[in-house]
Amino acid sequence: MKLAIDIMGGDNAPIAILDGVRLALENPAFDGSLQLYGDAKVIEQYFDTHKISKSRCTIHPTTQIIGFDEHPTAAIRAKKDSSIVRAIRAVAEGEADCVVSAGSTGALLTGATLIIKRQAGVLRPALSSMLPTMAGGRVLLLDCGANADSKPEYIAQFARMGHAYMRQFCHIESPKVALLSNGTEAEKGSELIKAAHELLKADTLLNFQGNTEARDLLAGHADVIVADGFSGNIALKASEGAAAGVMGLLKTALSSSLRAKLGAALAMPALRGMKRSMDYTEYGGGALLGVRGGVLKVHGSAQGKTFAYAILQAVELCRSGVVGAIGELLRGHAD
Amino acid sequence: MKLAIDIMGGDNAPIAILDGVRLALENPAFDGSLQLYGDAKVIEQYFDTHKISKSRCTIHPTTQIIGFDEHPTAAIRAKKDSSIVRAIRAVAEGEADCVVSAGSTGALLTGATLIIKRQAGVLRPALSSMLPTMAGGRVLLLDCGANADSKPEYIAQFARMGHAYMRQFCHIESPKVALLSNGTEAEKGSELIKAAHELLKADTLLNFQGNTEARDLLAGHADVIVADGFSGNIALKASEGAAAGVMGLLKTALSSSLRAKLGAALAMPALRGMKRSMDYTEYGGGALLGVRGGVLKVHGSAQGKTFAYAILQAVELCRSGVVGAIGELLRGHAD
Repeated sequence: MKLAIDIMGGDNAPIAILDGVRLALENPAFDGSLQLYGDAKVIEQYFDTHKISKSRCTIHPTTQIIGFDEHPTAAIRAKKDSSIVRAIRAVAEGEADCVVSAGSTGALLTGATLIIKRQAGVLRPALSSMLPTMAGGRVLLLDCGANADSKPEYIAQFARMGHAYMRQFCHIESPKVALLSNGTEAEKGSELIKAAHELLKADTLLNFQGNTEARDLLAGHADVIVADGFSGNIALKASEGAAAGVMGLLKTALSSSLRAKLGAALAMPALRGMKRSMDYTEYGGGALLGVRGGVLKVHGSAQGKTFAYAILQAVELCRSGVVGAIGELLRGHAD
Repeated sequence: MKLAIDIMGGDNAPIAILDGVRLALENPAFDGSLQLYGDAKVIEQYFDTHKISKSRCTIHPTTQIIGFDEHPTAAIRAKKDSSIVRAIRAVAEGEADCVVSAGSTGALLTGATLIIKRQAGVLRPALSSMLPTMAGGRVLLLDCGANADSKPEYIAQFARMGHAYMRQFCHIESPKVALLSNGTEAEKGSELIKAAHELLKADTLLNFQGNTEARDLLAGHADVIVADGFSGNIALKASEGAAAGVMGLLKTALSSSLRAKLGAALAMPALRGMKRSMDYTEYGGGALLGVRGGVLKVHGSAQGKTFAYAILQAVELCRSGVVGAIGELLRGHAD
């Protein structure tokens, strides 16, 4: 499996990304090869300092970087020698199976759509995110924000993409699909969501469970939760924010007195287990579904460990045949 | 202050609601009078059993109940003698200053809009929710779901309503207003949100701070977060769900071993303080803004303590003059 890595993308790039590369190479489970796009001098120096073998890596020097604040389409067009564009191009040209980037979401999504291009029949690619559920399982949420404005037909396709993903990647025979709405009843929702509900209900391929409220996003009732890109983004970030906020309050509370500190020390193994069970980092990145190749978006704030997981996840993504399965399910679907 | 109480609405009605009434009457801070709409026999019996004086209450017998699964408009029209419709009517007819109900949100919003009616200039009423922030303050989120489909002009009005609310109710001279979107940059968002952004930016009355992401909903950067009703509902419920989920995991972790239990016992005072700081129950209910009277929606799952807080909040709502201030700010605004 050949992966194209954007070394320069992310809040902590390039060092955190290179740390991720190193951790992946050290992991016995990883047997792929890596194409590293970025500042060749920095990469060479990192490899020398850490005494890492370059046998499974090729370095592709690039001279430009696309920042988080740049307009995606303009930046993609202007900065053809940026690490992210070059890595995307590697997938488009068949040099790599999957691009992995912690850079600008907009640039990655726009670049992938413009350069790798949509699969036949796909109206709009969707950004997915695999989340840990409170029940100890996982749920795929999509679209998490590739499309600020969705149409019912897009959402119907997102559901099929999610279905294919959970079948191929998680081996769930008939994944339960739910639609994110402001109420569980079929008649609840915006005009967009009500129209999408009708399309999902009519799609006999899907194991459609009806609407779900955002309150149950992580409850584990469904395998796939499908949403318009705007609401999906709101739901994902509101959950992340609230969970992080509660953990922050917990940390403050447990260091607020000597007694609390003693209690925390005793409870630490249990608290660590809890933290692990809700750890987003092990889920690495979110796959962009509906394009002709693998595209994995890693959280901008990713450190080495998270990026290394994303590299392993990218290998799984390619191996599982998700892209091919989506191609089969959507070819002719839009007609 | 005269409040119309829907005794029959809510998952735990009528007993939890009557518990709330009793707790409010026992609270020295409460000096209003209560009109109780519901099954007279049940109410009388509760008062007898608990030996509560009826001096500040009047009982208004009703014969019907609107359930959570009924279609709001149809139910409002068909069940004219339901506790919720009668309580709403009391406000419409000037018999009461505010209706307080834990019943069907749809029925309360539809009933209030149809019977109490919108204030002059108001395009659409909005459901607000006061949330505790991680910084220890509070933030008003609206619309939380009164409108499944919004227009930019509605959102612009929601912002003015939120501005008036935070000025009157929380005495903040120039409340910071932010718009919920999928990115902080002005050009981020759906077409709806981008158009709303322009209107908010142009409104010189507002202290508009630009967009905020759902991740920062509870961060305490803004006093008012304004959203289209669908996204606002998603953001609110996703936050509630994630926070409840983390608290559930914490509880499980802290009872997973003898050692964890000991630690929890030591840390309990600190943990209780933390729980209190994120306690939604003290915030009672969400006010419906933009109608000609006070309307307070209490969480369907409310127990007595929460309902009692909501009764106190209803008094504050009337006393603060929020309704009048909204009337002043929106008269002629829609033209």
